[in-house]
Amino acid sequence: MLTARLVDNIWATRKAESLSGFKLMLAEIIGGRSDGERLVVVDIISAGIGDRVIISTGSGARRMLGDDSVPVDAVVVGIIDETCQIE
Amino acid sequence: MLTARLVDNIWATRKAESLSGFKLMLAEIIGGRSDGERLVVVDIISAGIGDRVIISTGSGARRMLGDDSVPVDAVVVGIIDETCQIE
Amino acid sequence: MLTARLVDNIWATRKAESLSGFKLMLAEIIGGRSDGERLVVVDIISAGIGDRVIISTGSGARRMLGDDSVPVDAVVVGIIDETCQIE
Amino acid sequence: MLTARLVDNIWATRKAESLSGFKLMLAEIIGGRSDGERLVVVDIISAGIGDRVIISTGSGARRMLGDDSVPVDAVVVGIIDETCQIE
Amino acid sequence: MLTARLVDNIWATRKAESLSGFKLMLAEIIGGRSDGERLVVVDIISAGIGDRVIISTGSGARRMLGDDSVPVDAVVVGIIDETCQIE
Repeated sequence: MLTARLVDNIWATRKAESLSGFKLMLAEIIGGRSDGERLVVVDIISAGIGDRVIISTGSGARRMLGDDSVPVDAVVVGIIDETCQIE
Repeated sequence: MLTARLVDNIWATRKAESLSGFKLMLAEIIGGRSDGERLVVVDIISAGIGDRVIISTGSGARRMLGDDSVPVDAVVVGIIDETCQIE
Repeated sequence: MLTARLVDNIWATRKAESLSGFKLMLAEIIGGRSDGERLVVVDIISAGIGDRVIISTGSGARRMLGDDSVPVDAVVVGIIDETCQIE
Repeated sequence: MLTARLVDNIWATRKAESLSGFKLMLAEIIGGRSDGERLVVVDIISAGIGDRVIISTGSGARRMLGDDSVPVDAVVVGIIDETCQIE
Repeated sequence: MLTARLVDNIWATRKAESLSGFKLMLAEIIGGRSDGERLVVVDIISAGIGDRVIISTGSGARRMLGDDSVPVDAVVVGIIDETCQIE
């Protein structure tokens, strides 16, 4: 999994029907050599802009949604505690 | 998922039979440290050259096509709204 | 698989229910050109901070947990012997 | 998928039995920031050295072979038309 | 797949039970822009240190082991002939 900060919402009116209702957010990897790399993630645990989160990728991400038919490859699986120093 | 801009069509007369009928496009990643990286994607939601899109990769991409037998690893899953600033 | 050093624990009170009970750790890749890249891993073989470990990624990682429904993409599969020189 | 140029054949007398009969080629990614990266691909559509091709990776690649038991992660899925400018 | 040179054995006394009996080796990618990147691979075709090999990654790697439950993501699928020039 990756550690990242949620930096923005992503709005896409025209999209896959199976993505309807999912909140899409832009995440920026923090720490390590990939620092600053960006990816679009689905959030279903009510994370917000500015939160540091753990992101699961690939087929593991779809396990979070409980529906293997959604065309998704990155999902927020946890919000890192504020007291946790990782940078 | 990745944010990218569609920069061109890709024409391949000789290709896998299962790819027949699918529109192939060249996409260039925008934003973050992977900015400028290129990949070939399948589009089935009528995106056009110049559009900023969300791309799902890996087995998640095939979920978009509703057919797990297509040899595809990257598909456009959404078109980012023009009013959405991500760069 | 990747060789990495476990550098810290990761605490996330709000997380996927299916992740409850799993120990999350921050790992830093050692050796080669990806040296210093970071990822979050699940450990179920009682590795500790400072240990050099082997990390399996992707769907292979979930094989370690014996439960394919956990939204995880990186797991510690072995602790490298102290006498083994890889750096 | 990736755009690449086939640069050579790869010969491996000792290999997985399930790979027997498959033509292995060395491909070099063209265009974008990964330009020059190399990977070994299976070709079953009679592409040749010098051809610009589209390569599918991961589990999508095996879909091209019609046999999910082959230990392969990259396959040529199309030959880019000579008139198509992508560089 | 990737071309790599096997550079060392990896010893891990404490590891996943399902990895028992598998030979783990350290491989270094050769050629292209990823030259020098390292990964840990399983070898079941009696490759040795110094050999140039073809490595399959992801779920394709497990196909080589004939057992999808092993937490592995990289396996040697072939030994490149000595007469084959790829560098």
